[in-house]
Amino acid sequence: MTTIGPTCGVGTRARFPVRTTLTRGEAMNAEEIAAANDLARQLRVDSIRSSTSAGSGHPTSSLSAADLLAVLATRHMHYDWNQPDLPTNDHLVFSKGHASPLIYSLYRAVGVVSEEELMTTYRRFGARLQGHPTPELPWIDLATGSLGLGITAAVGIALAGSRLDKLPFHVWVICGDSELAEGSVWEALDKAAFYDLENFTAIVDVNRLGQRGPTELGWDLDAYAARVEAFGCVPIIIDGHDVEAIDDALGKASTDGRPTVVLARTLKGKGVAEIEDKEGWHGTALKPDLAEKAVQELGGVSSLIVNSLTPPDGSSAITPNPKAALTIPTYTLGEKIATRKAYGDALVALSSRPEVVVLDAEVGNSTGSESFLAVAPERYFETFIAEQLMVGAAGGLAVRGYVPFAATFGAFFSRAFDFVRMSGISGLKIRLAGSHAGVEIGPDGPSQMALEDLASMRAVHGSVVLYPSDATSAVALVVAMADAPGVAFIRTTRGAYPVLYGPDEEFVIGGSKVVRSSDNDSVTLVGAGVTLYESLAAADLLAEENISAKVIDCYSIKPIDADTLIAASASTGGRVVVTEDHYPSGGIGEAVLSALVGSGVGPKFAHLAVRDLSCSGTPDELLDAAGISAVHIADAARALVRD
Amino acid sequence: MTTIGPTCGVGTRARFPVRTTLTRGEAMNAEEIAAANDLARQLRVDSIRSSTSAGSGHPTSSLSAADLLAVLATRHMHYDWNQPDLPTNDHLVFSKGHASPLIYSLYRAVGVVSEEELMTTYRRFGARLQGHPTPELPWIDLATGSLGLGITAAVGIALAGSRLDKLPFHVWVICGDSELAEGSVWEALDKAAFYDLENFTAIVDVNRLGQRGPTELGWDLDAYAARVEAFGCVPIIIDGHDVEAIDDALGKASTDGRPTVVLARTLKGKGVAEIEDKEGWHGTALKPDLAEKAVQELGGVSSLIVNSLTPPDGSSAITPNPKAALTIPTYTLGEKIATRKAYGDALVALSSRPEVVVLDAEVGNSTGSESFLAVAPERYFETFIAEQLMVGAAGGLAVRGYVPFAATFGAFFSRAFDFVRMSGISGLKIRLAGSHAGVEIGPDGPSQMALEDLASMRAVHGSVVLYPSDATSAVALVVAMADAPGVAFIRTTRGAYPVLYGPDEEFVIGGSKVVRSSDNDSVTLVGAGVTLYESLAAADLLAEENISAKVIDCYSIKPIDADTLIAASASTGGRVVVTEDHYPSGGIGEAVLSALVGSGVGPKFAHLAVRDLSCSGTPDELLDAAGISAVHIADAARALVRD
Repeated sequence: MTTIGPTCGVGTRARFPVRTTLTRGEAMNAEEIAAANDLARQLRVDSIRSSTSAGSGHPTSSLSAADLLAVLATRHMHYDWNQPDLPTNDHLVFSKGHASPLIYSLYRAVGVVSEEELMTTYRRFGARLQGHPTPELPWIDLATGSLGLGITAAVGIALAGSRLDKLPFHVWVICGDSELAEGSVWEALDKAAFYDLENFTAIVDVNRLGQRGPTELGWDLDAYAARVEAFGCVPIIIDGHDVEAIDDALGKASTDGRPTVVLARTLKGKGVAEIEDKEGWHGTALKPDLAEKAVQELGGVSSLIVNSLTPPDGSSAITPNPKAALTIPTYTLGEKIATRKAYGDALVALSSRPEVVVLDAEVGNSTGSESFLAVAPERYFETFIAEQLMVGAAGGLAVRGYVPFAATFGAFFSRAFDFVRMSGISGLKIRLAGSHAGVEIGPDGPSQMALEDLASMRAVHGSVVLYPSDATSAVALVVAMADAPGVAFIRTTRGAYPVLYGPDEEFVIGGSKVVRSSDNDSVTLVGAGVTLYESLAAADLLAEENISAKVIDCYSIKPIDADTLIAASASTGGRVVVTEDHYPSGGIGEAVLSALVGSGVGPKFAHLAVRDLSCSGTPDELLDAAGISAVHIADAARALVRD
Repeated sequence: MTTIGPTCGVGTRARFPVRTTLTRGEAMNAEEIAAANDLARQLRVDSIRSSTSAGSGHPTSSLSAADLLAVLATRHMHYDWNQPDLPTNDHLVFSKGHASPLIYSLYRAVGVVSEEELMTTYRRFGARLQGHPTPELPWIDLATGSLGLGITAAVGIALAGSRLDKLPFHVWVICGDSELAEGSVWEALDKAAFYDLENFTAIVDVNRLGQRGPTELGWDLDAYAARVEAFGCVPIIIDGHDVEAIDDALGKASTDGRPTVVLARTLKGKGVAEIEDKEGWHGTALKPDLAEKAVQELGGVSSLIVNSLTPPDGSSAITPNPKAALTIPTYTLGEKIATRKAYGDALVALSSRPEVVVLDAEVGNSTGSESFLAVAPERYFETFIAEQLMVGAAGGLAVRGYVPFAATFGAFFSRAFDFVRMSGISGLKIRLAGSHAGVEIGPDGPSQMALEDLASMRAVHGSVVLYPSDATSAVALVVAMADAPGVAFIRTTRGAYPVLYGPDEEFVIGGSKVVRSSDNDSVTLVGAGVTLYESLAAADLLAEENISAKVIDCYSIKPIDADTLIAASASTGGRVVVTEDHYPSGGIGEAVLSALVGSGVGPKFAHLAVRDLSCSGTPDELLDAAGISAVHIADAARALVRD
């Protein structure tokens, strides 16, 4: 363990005015001002010590925001650090996640992380004090570190508080100034204002220096304020190192019905002359000798222990009921129903669970989401065409225990891919439905076709990827998704196709269905979504030639039903034809292949997929042109059988 | 061919004042006003006729913008429709791509698309008049249809005009109001202002109705104007159906050194009483009887032929020189160099090609890009932390014939995935470098680790995906990327590793290197990037046990060197171990597997990848914890050999 400088005032709780309540608007007295400054100094010292001990990290970005966090945590934030799950706790979202030394130093100051943990585990292998915060820490709602992301989740948390929980907790989000260049920040502020989120306050640490140099707007706080105002929030400009000004600004938050954005002018590296407001110190820990000097300059190591304000009693207005009875819609065999329509039907069924909420990016009439609006409008959130915000806010709703279903065209989830990726890292239980999959959509052309979604969604950590073919299975899988771990994605189809399954069939995440089988099958055809229908038609064509084909509905792409696939492959001489309405890379074919090679059966394998840029046309034309229609599947199967 | 209503005035060029120049500020005379209104009527009629003939499309979104386009195309846009490649042509970017009937109707009016093509091919299979415009049409710079995207490319085109070409062309971008909810729009306007793009005008068709109902801001044009102003552009509010007001507004564009945003209040479905300003008509073609009535209401079919203004003579200040001599950096074998450093070195070498430009999302000191800044600052564009804009603007620069290299952390390209996807659809030659790949980055934790990038990038249409291990190969591949077709992505590593290749080794897109081989190899180890080093170390471990291993550097992931992989697999009894610093789905393992199964060799296959959520630690710890270090590779190889 590295010790830097002398320790003093260890555990001097008495030196800091312990408050558990605060009278709004009451100015700080001299003792409180001194105490806040003492705490800020300690946070700076610990930010330097911890990052130096790790040999890496972002101390200067921590130093700039230390006063902001000191005042926030002790005079405005209602939080019981020993009960992080208390429903009335405020939320603190650390959108500038790289300043992790600062938040971890606060954890030491509130007594939940020890000196030893801070100084010996930060950024080390296996430790919970990671380089950027993750929810492995009980006080962290979601992983940050990708800029412009935490603030979108904060909108979701605030939405939960004001519209669903109806609890008085406040959502505080600490942003860097660099991240205000991200469009997602403006999507977030726009929606915070649209939903009148008085319980939302963003605090921007305007230290004017980004990673590689000055930011675009520098210290032009008026320019930031004009943007904030234009997007419907209340800007407050302050000196971010003046604890009284900070206290005053935070006291004004949530007083006029609008969300607040505190724009704090700060110095990067504040308090240490050698690095203060200097370029070239972004992601750089101080070398031990400089760190020692800096700690001395800041007044040495201290061990103040502080409290946040006591949260009120209270519980959410909504009590989750995961066991609520659901009225599952049923369909007539052969009836033509689009799976996107079935998605909406399933949402209606799930509406009996009070924790289920729906988000729409202004395409709810296309994705099926709008069906939910009619039955539970208070749990339907329109985000307009802002997919990043939609996914980020879904994560925020999940933080509060809600089960968010967010939908847009599958192609347009690519706009929010980072938000999905980060949700996977956070383990947030968000449910995504991507409609209009593949070339099947027809005349709208390639910009509207999801042809990369399975690859990107499969690659997300811990994700579930589903792709039902008919309405019955779609409904069952949407219901199953509600309780799936982590990020769950379902792909739906634009067109209406015949119902294949009766109401008693079971569909589980990780399952598949052998929809056609006989003892003398000589090839296995694997499809999902529209290509299941094509595979069935191909089996008919093959039957005319006395080639018997097994057909598998591979509705669960991740996890995939390896056992069934391996058995089918083995029983058909290792001959497998996979057909997918998706580009060949990273989709169903490769998922099946990965499953099969574990079997020891040398697979004879054909992989049909969309390989060329598609264009406008009817669905039949495009399926055929892409080589994924019945005749092509039959051709591929024939070739394998001949071998 | 469907004919709706009577035709009249076919080819009546004389009815429309043919102008080839325009005196700025000159008001429209009565004849010009009438002519503009006549053209707008024709565009409306043709928008209805073409979409009705197709049975789908977005006529109402076309009708709202018809007056805007009529005035723009005939009185402000300098464009030779018969020479779409003329360097002094203005650019018209149709960001609201769903209103394709309108732009295609203009093509008929300027005489480059026939009545027959418009009425019999729109949205049909194989036709160039697709549901959303693509560059298959010579007058379209890039595919649109994913909202909030065209405007980012327009920034890149305008940047090329003002900073590189130094040509007086203007960039006009037509946006819908719904798409202003996308954060990317604000990234675009922010950068248009930052770069003083006087040659940039966005025209927003504020018809207040989105796909599923009213937009967030409706007709609150003042709210839009405040946002535009706050982001540094000049807002002009007009009645979008008053041709004189439109003419006046467009005449004011590019007169005060700042980019302009014309906010035009319009009616969706304008001119047809039954659908005008009505909900429920977004993506709906009129049925033939209603279409016939609408055409009558608008005054019937006409065939005005119009011109745009004649572009001036001129040519770009920059002459591309793809054959320019390059001074390729060389490295000493064994010297430790990070491939991200080599990326910067290669950019410096490429700086002798005047068409090479570099974009940075404020991490140029981490990605290597900054090296280029020192040698060619006039071709280095800082976009700050706005990855969507960076990739979109790169596309715009590519439209003008530049070779843009854009870099950020590999993880953060996920923020711009839709922009990459759409660039693939457009076939835009953008070059992307994603640094800090995989768990190899160490202490920064999972938010900063690119572990999904190969899957998503492989899935992009027509993409090239490269992943060099050492500095020599990195430089060679960056140079090769400059001339690659479509989207090319290179993945670089944070840490420094020994140079493996001498300066005379050749590296080609689609190639690989057998870096260790003997006649008695019994297993093939495939690696790329950091895992190549791990595979070499594993081969050493195996050699101690008299197991001889072939090692392949699979530096080109897409296209992949199938021949070499198949031969290697065949020569080692089908035993292959692939190791990658990427999640298992969609990455190198599945790419190799896809290559191998075509060979008829039943592969015995092990696939090592990052399967669990990673955390902070040293690179060695994390590689080992993820099961992709030398000992794990040796284990897997042993198991295969024993079989």
